[in-house]
Amino acid sequence: MLSIHAYRDAFVSHLEQHIVTREPVNLYNPMNYILGLGGKRLRPVLTLMTADIFGNDYKKAMNAAMAIEIFHNFSLIHDDIMDDAPLRRGKETVHEKWDLNTGILSGDVMLIVAYQFFERYDPEVFHKLAKLFSKTAIEVCEGQQYDIDFETRDDVTIDEYLKMITYKTAVLVGAAMEMGAIVTHADENDAKAIYDFGMNLGIAFQIKDDYLDAFGDPKSFGKQIGGDIIENKKTFLYLKTIEELGNDEAEQLLHLYAIAPADPSAKIQTVKELMASSGAVDATLKAIENYTKKALDILNGLNISAEKKETLVSFANILMGREV
Amino acid sequence: MLSIHAYRDAFVSHLEQHIVTREPVNLYNPMNYILGLGGKRLRPVLTLMTADIFGNDYKKAMNAAMAIEIFHNFSLIHDDIMDDAPLRRGKETVHEKWDLNTGILSGDVMLIVAYQFFERYDPEVFHKLAKLFSKTAIEVCEGQQYDIDFETRDDVTIDEYLKMITYKTAVLVGAAMEMGAIVTHADENDAKAIYDFGMNLGIAFQIKDDYLDAFGDPKSFGKQIGGDIIENKKTFLYLKTIEELGNDEAEQLLHLYAIAPADPSAKIQTVKELMASSGAVDATLKAIENYTKKALDILNGLNISAEKKETLVSFANILMGREV
Repeated sequence: MLSIHAYRDAFVSHLEQHIVTREPVNLYNPMNYILGLGGKRLRPVLTLMTADIFGNDYKKAMNAAMAIEIFHNFSLIHDDIMDDAPLRRGKETVHEKWDLNTGILSGDVMLIVAYQFFERYDPEVFHKLAKLFSKTAIEVCEGQQYDIDFETRDDVTIDEYLKMITYKTAVLVGAAMEMGAIVTHADENDAKAIYDFGMNLGIAFQIKDDYLDAFGDPKSFGKQIGGDIIENKKTFLYLKTIEELGNDEAEQLLHLYAIAPADPSAKIQTVKELMASSGAVDATLKAIENYTKKALDILNGLNISAEKKETLVSFANILMGREV
Repeated sequence: MLSIHAYRDAFVSHLEQHIVTREPVNLYNPMNYILGLGGKRLRPVLTLMTADIFGNDYKKAMNAAMAIEIFHNFSLIHDDIMDDAPLRRGKETVHEKWDLNTGILSGDVMLIVAYQFFERYDPEVFHKLAKLFSKTAIEVCEGQQYDIDFETRDDVTIDEYLKMITYKTAVLVGAAMEMGAIVTHADENDAKAIYDFGMNLGIAFQIKDDYLDAFGDPKSFGKQIGGDIIENKKTFLYLKTIEELGNDEAEQLLHLYAIAPADPSAKIQTVKELMASSGAVDATLKAIENYTKKALDILNGLNISAEKKETLVSFANILMGREV
């Protein structure tokens, strides 16, 4: 097993070999641009790591890892158009740097290029990978659609929210890991179990991200604290608060989520107080804990060495920002 | 073998079974809407017909035909956004009826759904179909990009134009036919040959469409005669005219292609006169003839009965609008 850092380096150096100029340049330059913007490369690293866990052969998983990373970046390009986002990782988004049409078409070709990376495997493995990939990619689209739908709905339930983040974010983490298991011909139950591990960890990670958006340390969080509150985003934290508050205070929160003051600081402070006093903050931390535990419990059933289980536990702890 | 009409009916009735309400409705209703708009269903009909030619079993090809038709409609949704087109088959385009984001995301999910239809075949066949599909889909994107690039270039060559229409239109016709051969386990050379047959016919068909746009019968053509000239589109006919004209007249044509008069009738008439007097009209009709002949010549090498060859010849004649 390598360190997370070493997997990332191996992946990035492989990726860089694929960043070459191709005709028509207006189609492929945006692909190279977004793939070169960096990022944590979390998903491909998980694919490589999982291949080492089940087969001691992370290099076998390199093409699957490429597919996962290219798909993820396809979804970023199209999501950025839909969100009208000017920046991605501190740089111009594709549709800003080029234009709308370039963003659409370059995204489309990346989705297809992702499938092509599975062609390097034999037909049986290709079949499994492409099937899992299509199922996952469809769920990601459905999650994105639910996210859009929720913006204009005021009756979103916590269960619906959990389904949305599961589809939009968590299933791709699960699939990234299962692909590492598939290419190394892991036992089918192990492959499914590692998918569930990744998916539950993905849910925990997303709820934690919601929590940090309001209560994180401004120094380490990287984004503006309270951004979700400013945008009236219906996060786990918000939905839990509505659920826990009495009628009058719920009314107050609904009002705060209907306005967009020029200086949002008072709004942010009041909403955060309601989140804390309602008990929703505690409930959110508990939910993060539960999904993390759910992930870790799955490891017990895996047919792998104690040492490899320890690697996965460490990874989960690092991801969830806990001291190991 | 069935008639083209009967293949179309079989396909449409199969398609209608798949048009069901699915959640999230804002993602899947646009897919059902565009698939229900009708059209000639040329590509899936070709897939079914080819399966009968090589294996007497068109039903085996139904899932591949679905994939082809869904992919084609995905490309229509995204192309209509890029062209800012208000109408498709006389009805509102998806991004007009819903909005931009719906057009992008529904298109994305259709591209993935298309791949899923190949999963119904065994891994070996799945591998072949998905590989051909990805290659073709990438070429379609590249063709669309070249088409966009050509709008702002004034040095497009006829070879470049031919490559563009081959990628944007003709390869999908070839792939639709090859898939019918693949699912019925046709000889590999036959599968490649029928791809070439479809592709060459697709090129002939596209050049003919360019020709009819300027010189077709207004009663039967269905679109406004001279539409390409109004939009200054660099078609085969136009590029050939530029190539054949002397400097002065070429200059005149370039000037006409730089203006957009409120009443375009004089412009259309002059351009058409230049097209005819330069010999470009004759050269265009000759090119259509050549590509059609190239397609038909391929049939000689196929390991199929004379009767089946006759079916393909009839189909080519119907498609090219000639009396049989």
